[in-house]
Amino acid sequence: MSLRVGVIGTGAIGRVHIERISERLSGAEIVAVSDVNRSQAEQVVTDYGLKAEVFDNGEALINSAAVDAVIVASWGPTHEEFVLECIAAGKPVFCEKPLAVTAEGCKAIVDAEIASGRKLVQVGFMRRYDAAYRQLKDAIVQNRIGAPLTLNCAHRAPAAPGFTGDMAITDSCVHEFDVLRWLLDEDYVSAQVILPRKTTLCDEHLQDPHVVQLRTQSGVHISIESFVNCQYGYDIRCQVTGETGIAHLPQPASVTLQTHATEQSAIIVDWQERFVAAFDTEFQCWINDCNRGEMNGPTAWDGYVVAVTADACVKAKHSGQIEPINLPATPDFYRG
Amino acid sequence: MSLRVGVIGTGAIGRVHIERISERLSGAEIVAVSDVNRSQAEQVVTDYGLKAEVFDNGEALINSAAVDAVIVASWGPTHEEFVLECIAAGKPVFCEKPLAVTAEGCKAIVDAEIASGRKLVQVGFMRRYDAAYRQLKDAIVQNRIGAPLTLNCAHRAPAAPGFTGDMAITDSCVHEFDVLRWLLDEDYVSAQVILPRKTTLCDEHLQDPHVVQLRTQSGVHISIESFVNCQYGYDIRCQVTGETGIAHLPQPASVTLQTHATEQSAIIVDWQERFVAAFDTEFQCWINDCNRGEMNGPTAWDGYVVAVTADACVKAKHSGQIEPINLPATPDFYRG
Amino acid sequence: MSLRVGVIGTGAIGRVHIERISERLSGAEIVAVSDVNRSQAEQVVTDYGLKAEVFDNGEALINSAAVDAVIVASWGPTHEEFVLECIAAGKPVFCEKPLAVTAEGCKAIVDAEIASGRKLVQVGFMRRYDAAYRQLKDAIVQNRIGAPLTLNCAHRAPAAPGFTGDMAITDSCVHEFDVLRWLLDEDYVSAQVILPRKTTLCDEHLQDPHVVQLRTQSGVHISIESFVNCQYGYDIRCQVTGETGIAHLPQPASVTLQTHATEQSAIIVDWQERFVAAFDTEFQCWINDCNRGEMNGPTAWDGYVVAVTADACVKAKHSGQIEPINLPATPDFYRG
Amino acid sequence: MSLRVGVIGTGAIGRVHIERISERLSGAEIVAVSDVNRSQAEQVVTDYGLKAEVFDNGEALINSAAVDAVIVASWGPTHEEFVLECIAAGKPVFCEKPLAVTAEGCKAIVDAEIASGRKLVQVGFMRRYDAAYRQLKDAIVQNRIGAPLTLNCAHRAPAAPGFTGDMAITDSCVHEFDVLRWLLDEDYVSAQVILPRKTTLCDEHLQDPHVVQLRTQSGVHISIESFVNCQYGYDIRCQVTGETGIAHLPQPASVTLQTHATEQSAIIVDWQERFVAAFDTEFQCWINDCNRGEMNGPTAWDGYVVAVTADACVKAKHSGQIEPINLPATPDFYRG
Repeated sequence: MSLRVGVIGTGAIGRVHIERISERLSGAEIVAVSDVNRSQAEQVVTDYGLKAEVFDNGEALINSAAVDAVIVASWGPTHEEFVLECIAAGKPVFCEKPLAVTAEGCKAIVDAEIASGRKLVQVGFMRRYDAAYRQLKDAIVQNRIGAPLTLNCAHRAPAAPGFTGDMAITDSCVHEFDVLRWLLDEDYVSAQVILPRKTTLCDEHLQDPHVVQLRTQSGVHISIESFVNCQYGYDIRCQVTGETGIAHLPQPASVTLQTHATEQSAIIVDWQERFVAAFDTEFQCWINDCNRGEMNGPTAWDGYVVAVTADACVKAKHSGQIEPINLPATPDFYRG
Repeated sequence: MSLRVGVIGTGAIGRVHIERISERLSGAEIVAVSDVNRSQAEQVVTDYGLKAEVFDNGEALINSAAVDAVIVASWGPTHEEFVLECIAAGKPVFCEKPLAVTAEGCKAIVDAEIASGRKLVQVGFMRRYDAAYRQLKDAIVQNRIGAPLTLNCAHRAPAAPGFTGDMAITDSCVHEFDVLRWLLDEDYVSAQVILPRKTTLCDEHLQDPHVVQLRTQSGVHISIESFVNCQYGYDIRCQVTGETGIAHLPQPASVTLQTHATEQSAIIVDWQERFVAAFDTEFQCWINDCNRGEMNGPTAWDGYVVAVTADACVKAKHSGQIEPINLPATPDFYRG
Repeated sequence: MSLRVGVIGTGAIGRVHIERISERLSGAEIVAVSDVNRSQAEQVVTDYGLKAEVFDNGEALINSAAVDAVIVASWGPTHEEFVLECIAAGKPVFCEKPLAVTAEGCKAIVDAEIASGRKLVQVGFMRRYDAAYRQLKDAIVQNRIGAPLTLNCAHRAPAAPGFTGDMAITDSCVHEFDVLRWLLDEDYVSAQVILPRKTTLCDEHLQDPHVVQLRTQSGVHISIESFVNCQYGYDIRCQVTGETGIAHLPQPASVTLQTHATEQSAIIVDWQERFVAAFDTEFQCWINDCNRGEMNGPTAWDGYVVAVTADACVKAKHSGQIEPINLPATPDFYRG
Repeated sequence: MSLRVGVIGTGAIGRVHIERISERLSGAEIVAVSDVNRSQAEQVVTDYGLKAEVFDNGEALINSAAVDAVIVASWGPTHEEFVLECIAAGKPVFCEKPLAVTAEGCKAIVDAEIASGRKLVQVGFMRRYDAAYRQLKDAIVQNRIGAPLTLNCAHRAPAAPGFTGDMAITDSCVHEFDVLRWLLDEDYVSAQVILPRKTTLCDEHLQDPHVVQLRTQSGVHISIESFVNCQYGYDIRCQVTGETGIAHLPQPASVTLQTHATEQSAIIVDWQERFVAAFDTEFQCWINDCNRGEMNGPTAWDGYVVAVTADACVKAKHSGQIEPINLPATPDFYRG
């Protein structure tokens, strides 16, 4: 059984997913593409030798009888509309983050999905599929370190040339917001954002680094050092202190060299390299789920929670205060 | 384009390759299977929901018009016959190690393949596809450590219950024999095998560990500690000392724990876990190569060289002497 | 030249310093001891074969013509009085922490020392003499990581049976308060203390862990995870994030074992083992300084700053607020 | 009690021992020095502010009534004569390696010491006092890895400008010869030396690296990669494979940096830095032993065994054969 997939958005991220599905994964084929820039979509069809129809717009693609499931990889502000259309069409949709650019938008999707009576939406939080995070979660679940008490995380990138305003929170820390509540299996209750001494190695109008602090329902204290102009590499860290021990997120394996009076190993610079295997697993799982009529990945509700958390962090950044994170109870629809 | 693959041998290793190709990889489908135990082959078709014909024997499968390419995963002594049949049929064949159980058998395959005028045979030396070995080779090729002078390797397994006689050399070190000459891009000239103090934790009639030592054409000294009842884990090491530095084979990433007065991380116990990603890459490459009409993996010649090397090591083990490894020049057919 | 040292307080810590000076270090001899428990002082003289007079009280010892310099290792509340007496006597004094049990007491010592016109007081902050912290400071000073922006520290002990109330701050974090401002060469401006989910593995009335956060004059954000019932070991960590890189405090070297499916190395459990070499260096430096008529170690002013910082942290712990740390300018007497 | 020490030889190594004893250690003072270059000896007295007599020659120093114990740090070929003189004078003597430049010379010292009826001679094999080797020995003795089966060692230095002929064996591997039999508590029975491809980064007439292989009485296989022009650092490694696990010699702790796309830590370049603490411990133990009338360090017999082992390795290097190491039984005088 081969899932017939349509892809909306054939920019950088869309292309790598098309390549992934058509050249490395099993059980799906790309049968439809669309892009605001139609010629780019046509080029992708040529480049990858796809047997795929090029649609004029996302709506047409979504509603084509030849399409079983949809990947939304277009410009963020368009996500909400396309996801709602997929729900209306009753088709599974994989939506790259953000699910919507506002928490309200996310909530509208949640409401529509519940009303539809079927789980159709998966959000592109790939870290849950990363082998390193899965090992870390296993260590917690297997009680290797006792009950978690504090988390000490870092999200570092060499540079973030296009970043403005609060994008370090809304574009990059959102991955931590999702994966950490999945790791701990509980929600956040408050946020604080500390603004340390700024690096001089980025636009002088930007704050970098931030220290984003969250508190969970059980009182776990989370600290995330977000440092998106750290120069030295793309480096994702997560350390969990529990009652009886500490667990650390595994790091990518690399050749160790002894040379020039140092012992050294390479640190990844490109974020895509860090999560390439996670993306593969994420999409293979999604394809398999679609082919079985299931939906087991991050949900629209998860996308909504992340949006609410990001809003609270942005507020806390500007207020300097500890801000509450008020979430409704998880709807039964999204439980278990 | 989907490669129509027939699999001969549906035991443990055959099953995992069938699962791999049908559930995780792209570009191929299993269309035919056979096994000396026909009911086992039928069970595999059911278990994986294959649309595959069950053949009475390997010859029939190989010669079926529905089969584009063949995987030989049957009992070792049958490999030679099936590979020769594939060559006669002009079909690409992936043969699990050993290519043949004698060097002469390997040579017969080499001769047949050359006579056929087309490269058709790939041998299942998966380590060349392991990301860790590839990184190590990159470090050498990029001159990070200067010219290699010595290699210090280990091949350790927790236990080897079925091993008898010289199987530590002929069944397990053969992977080192292949991957190290690929790593160094040169052949061996002599072998010595040292028999250290024996572990008491295995059959008293067996020698374990062995220290297998090889010398290459340029004089590189290779030492392999083969210890197949080491108790503690499955552990593959390779350290290259060059003129200006040392490079170490990366090890599998694992959660680091601080607990019970130790800092610790897990060591893999199961060899399949160590190389599962390498097997995926190996087969995806083979499928892609078949679909493009190419053959870029380990050749029949590589299988022959390994067999000759293993023979020299077994002789050296029993003689206690440094034994020469005499190889004819690599035929032009197999060069670059 | 041999420095004639008198030791006030011959309990656990006094004994190890006596052993250190008489059996391992150069340039000093123990010539006088006193203790509230005179028989204990006499026992120490016997145990270490000292040629030392036992004094009835600290004052008499301090003022003996046979004593060149004094070590105060008695009960904390007596420190202030003995240190003031040493200043009055014009003799160098090494005072174990705390310098005094209140910030006011520390200030009184500072005032008396300034009035005396000579630097005489060294406080027992041994971490400045630890090779690991010195390497870390070197890395910062040599600009290996650019300007420091955030510090991520941990102070963990297996258990703290006698701890009550705020001792995690006043007895254990004080070492971080001293060594981190020495590391950064700047003072603190505010403190915040976060109370995470409590471990159940200690007295239920105690908060453990604490996350103590400090901000420096230049804006460096410091986080200290104080976890004094962490079960697994005595573990001191310090990570400095700078503009161009990260530096980590070296950890004690230990045999790495591969055994039982883990790679493991021992973590120290006893805090004295962690800093034994630092204590040796600290006292050898103090002896050499005394013999040269110098005073280069942590000063009374440093002791005062630590006391003020601890007070602010205790206040912040109970208020839940970010509390200012108000310090007068460093007196010229203590500069450079 | 202060041991009155005379030092013969005030070159580089003599100076550091004089500094060590007079400025860092306890229980000894330098009271006498001599050197073939008398003005150099006088300069040392001035430089370190010693109250020491300068003697015209070693014999006079040894026989001075003001000298309790002697350190021989002169030119190697003079060691035998000075050590014999110390035995004749009934004075403890610490002799830097070599004990004598021939095995026969070592044997003459052994015979003289036995005849004298008192253990007086300690040889300067400092590695036995290195905390890292002691930890490794503890791991073996505590049965953390089961019975040792193979040892994999390396002795690497950045460059060895003065080395000629077989000095890699006779001057540098001798430290392994001593410390490995101490580690395993058994003697060697044979030696083999393999000459790998040579580095081009040293004198073209020299062989470098060597792989020196030893076999012990119980069959333990030892491999030592001696590479004295390895460029990258001074690096001493020792890995012990036992029946149930592997143990590795701890390496010097160093700041870990993440910078410039690498994780890195410094490797020592200067051998003295590697063993400075071991030298301190070695001499403090020797002083304490002398003051108690004991001798617990490496003996003249140990020096003799190392000389015989080195001779066998040199022979094996030139013969290309496995050469026996024939040692008489350890005399009762040196047992336990």
